[in-house]
Amino acid sequence: MSRFDDYFLMKEEDVIAYVLEKHTLFDQNASLECREIGTGNLNYIYKVRDKKTDHSVIVKQAGIHGRLNPNKLLNTDRNRRESETLILHNRLAPGFAPEVYQYDKTMSCCLMEDLSSYNIMRDELLDHKIFPLFAEHITTFMVNTLLLTSDITMNHEEKKEQVKAFINPQLCEISERLVYTDPYTDIHGKNRVFEPITDFVVKELYGDKKLHLEVAKLKFDFMNNAQSLVHGDLHTGSIFIRADSTKVIDPEFAFYGPMGYDVGSIIANLLFCWANADATITDREKRRGFLNWVEHTIADTIDLFKVKFKVAFEKHVTEIMAKTDGFLDWYLGTVLTDTAAVAGLEAIRRVVGIASVADLTSIENPDARARAEKIVITAGKNLVLRRASYNTGQDFIQLLQQTAASI
Amino acid sequence: MSRFDDYFLMKEEDVIAYVLEKHTLFDQNASLECREIGTGNLNYIYKVRDKKTDHSVIVKQAGIHGRLNPNKLLNTDRNRRESETLILHNRLAPGFAPEVYQYDKTMSCCLMEDLSSYNIMRDELLDHKIFPLFAEHITTFMVNTLLLTSDITMNHEEKKEQVKAFINPQLCEISERLVYTDPYTDIHGKNRVFEPITDFVVKELYGDKKLHLEVAKLKFDFMNNAQSLVHGDLHTGSIFIRADSTKVIDPEFAFYGPMGYDVGSIIANLLFCWANADATITDREKRRGFLNWVEHTIADTIDLFKVKFKVAFEKHVTEIMAKTDGFLDWYLGTVLTDTAAVAGLEAIRRVVGIASVADLTSIENPDARARAEKIVITAGKNLVLRRASYNTGQDFIQLLQQTAASI
Repeated sequence: MSRFDDYFLMKEEDVIAYVLEKHTLFDQNASLECREIGTGNLNYIYKVRDKKTDHSVIVKQAGIHGRLNPNKLLNTDRNRRESETLILHNRLAPGFAPEVYQYDKTMSCCLMEDLSSYNIMRDELLDHKIFPLFAEHITTFMVNTLLLTSDITMNHEEKKEQVKAFINPQLCEISERLVYTDPYTDIHGKNRVFEPITDFVVKELYGDKKLHLEVAKLKFDFMNNAQSLVHGDLHTGSIFIRADSTKVIDPEFAFYGPMGYDVGSIIANLLFCWANADATITDREKRRGFLNWVEHTIADTIDLFKVKFKVAFEKHVTEIMAKTDGFLDWYLGTVLTDTAAVAGLEAIRRVVGIASVADLTSIENPDARARAEKIVITAGKNLVLRRASYNTGQDFIQLLQQTAASI
Repeated sequence: MSRFDDYFLMKEEDVIAYVLEKHTLFDQNASLECREIGTGNLNYIYKVRDKKTDHSVIVKQAGIHGRLNPNKLLNTDRNRRESETLILHNRLAPGFAPEVYQYDKTMSCCLMEDLSSYNIMRDELLDHKIFPLFAEHITTFMVNTLLLTSDITMNHEEKKEQVKAFINPQLCEISERLVYTDPYTDIHGKNRVFEPITDFVVKELYGDKKLHLEVAKLKFDFMNNAQSLVHGDLHTGSIFIRADSTKVIDPEFAFYGPMGYDVGSIIANLLFCWANADATITDREKRRGFLNWVEHTIADTIDLFKVKFKVAFEKHVTEIMAKTDGFLDWYLGTVLTDTAAVAGLEAIRRVVGIASVADLTSIENPDARARAEKIVITAGKNLVLRRASYNTGQDFIQLLQQTAASI
């Protein structure tokens, strides 16, 4: 019998007792302190630290009521899915996700590695810090988590059970709306368009029927193509980073979808970082230096992904028909096409949609911001419309440079 | 309290008591007789009939042990899936599936419409009977069951819950093996090739690497594309038919897959019927008459499917992006491409695979059988390799006639 046999919402002193009872990380002589550090509406996040040894752990508990709107009842299954995904990610790509020490279904509570020595990547990039190992790290993470959850390598029956366990109707619906619908129709009336580019958006996004047709095709691929367990929200705000290490967090959107959904999202978010630096770094040499790093990182993300994908495919392929000559090139080609498409969709939706990014909104000079946003939309449209033509890192860099020169 | 509150395997007298207790179809004065008519290894099928009124009902109970191999434990979830699919099919395409009166999870037992006045379509076709309404019926069934379970028309969250409920790892694995692997590799050593065409099969199927590559691509589409709730085994042996009525039965393979999987399977099975008649009807005029009907039925199945699909799409579409100009034509085009591909795959696998069809195996003259099987394989290969070129009923007829003329 334990007081934690039934769910209740813990306070800080309960969390200390919980950690001592449920985990061996701290011994009974530890001098623990606990602080709630959560900022979201859904979860409670506690940092528990031993003042004697400085060891620490994160306890994340799901609320069953909204924090800001207590009348809203929440489905805590997202926490089960998130914990299971983190555990799986750490198994498939060791060291690239916070370690989960345990998940407690009864308490809807997860004990995980404390990443206090890391910072959110988007914030770091807004300070124009560079991370030379990022492309290396993120491509290992993506190749491993995507290829090793697909029918290329998995037993097909086990893979289908995994598809079932990760079906994610509510959170997929959000992406279907915010990424694949609203930026082109504003049908829900929630788009937030920066006023100086309103006419541009009306013409280039709401008015371009050829673009809508391609987005519609891609929306059905997003909804129907159960290729791999994707993170589903892999932007620079979902990454904790240090010079020597990269950790992918918050996989609550995880579901079986197209591999390119994750790769494309990374590319788009590097594009935002490029547009921000281009608009805000006044020192010319410093600007060029930072842009160079971003461009190399975009190119390396594509090119290293391809190289590692091929190596991992040859090493891990189990599906006999996938071993046919020519299959790997064809398959990887479809992943790159999806990557370009999603990079374009994510680029566009972060400019006009409800979920904007600080990379763009923080640009203070209105002309510079308008130009940055037009660059992102224009490159994004090209990526969607000509998605099969971006096959190398250089193809993406060229698009970016040509687009910037044309605006 | 009822003796049917816990599962047990019923005998004929139990079935009579069960029907009287569980259903209002018969009153207590009925004079019921019961006969087991099942022939498979998995289920027990009883026909219960009132001798006074001639009313009857079918009771299908799932065994939890194999009938032929009692040590084999069976998962009865397939019966849940089958009953739910029949109920759904009857709701979406009223009158085209046997009516399910009730499904009893405890007893793994389904009460359904007795179709004794119908015959299995494959047997009727082998007797060279024609069914002028078949194309009309089957296209209504397919358009309704496929389009109305897709993201075109369904609420996307409900559709995902339905995908989850119909994930079917064991039976999909059978199709992945028998349709998408063995006919090209014989890796499991279970192919049964008619001896006189052995060299032909070795060269045209096992030796054609270009074909293998296309089959590999299609296998991944089968495994990953959760487009619609497909029947999954829609051949002429899964259809009960009368001159005036068509009933699709046995949807235990149902899962979310490509729409073309069902349409292509129908086309392939009409192709077998054509090849059989071509090889076995000696009277020239009679042969031409029957072949004409089969050809028209193939063409009508394609052309009526297209017409009805467009009408139903316009009527039922709810997905806003799918309303974009050009989307319907593009989408229907992909379904027709999948249809041609699956028609080819199904054609090929029934010639060389473990699950052969009487249409071919019953041809007594060895030369005639060899020719028929070569026609089917050759047409099948063309359908797979040039799958995007078959867009009208006439395209399929032309292929069939040209192939027959060339062998």
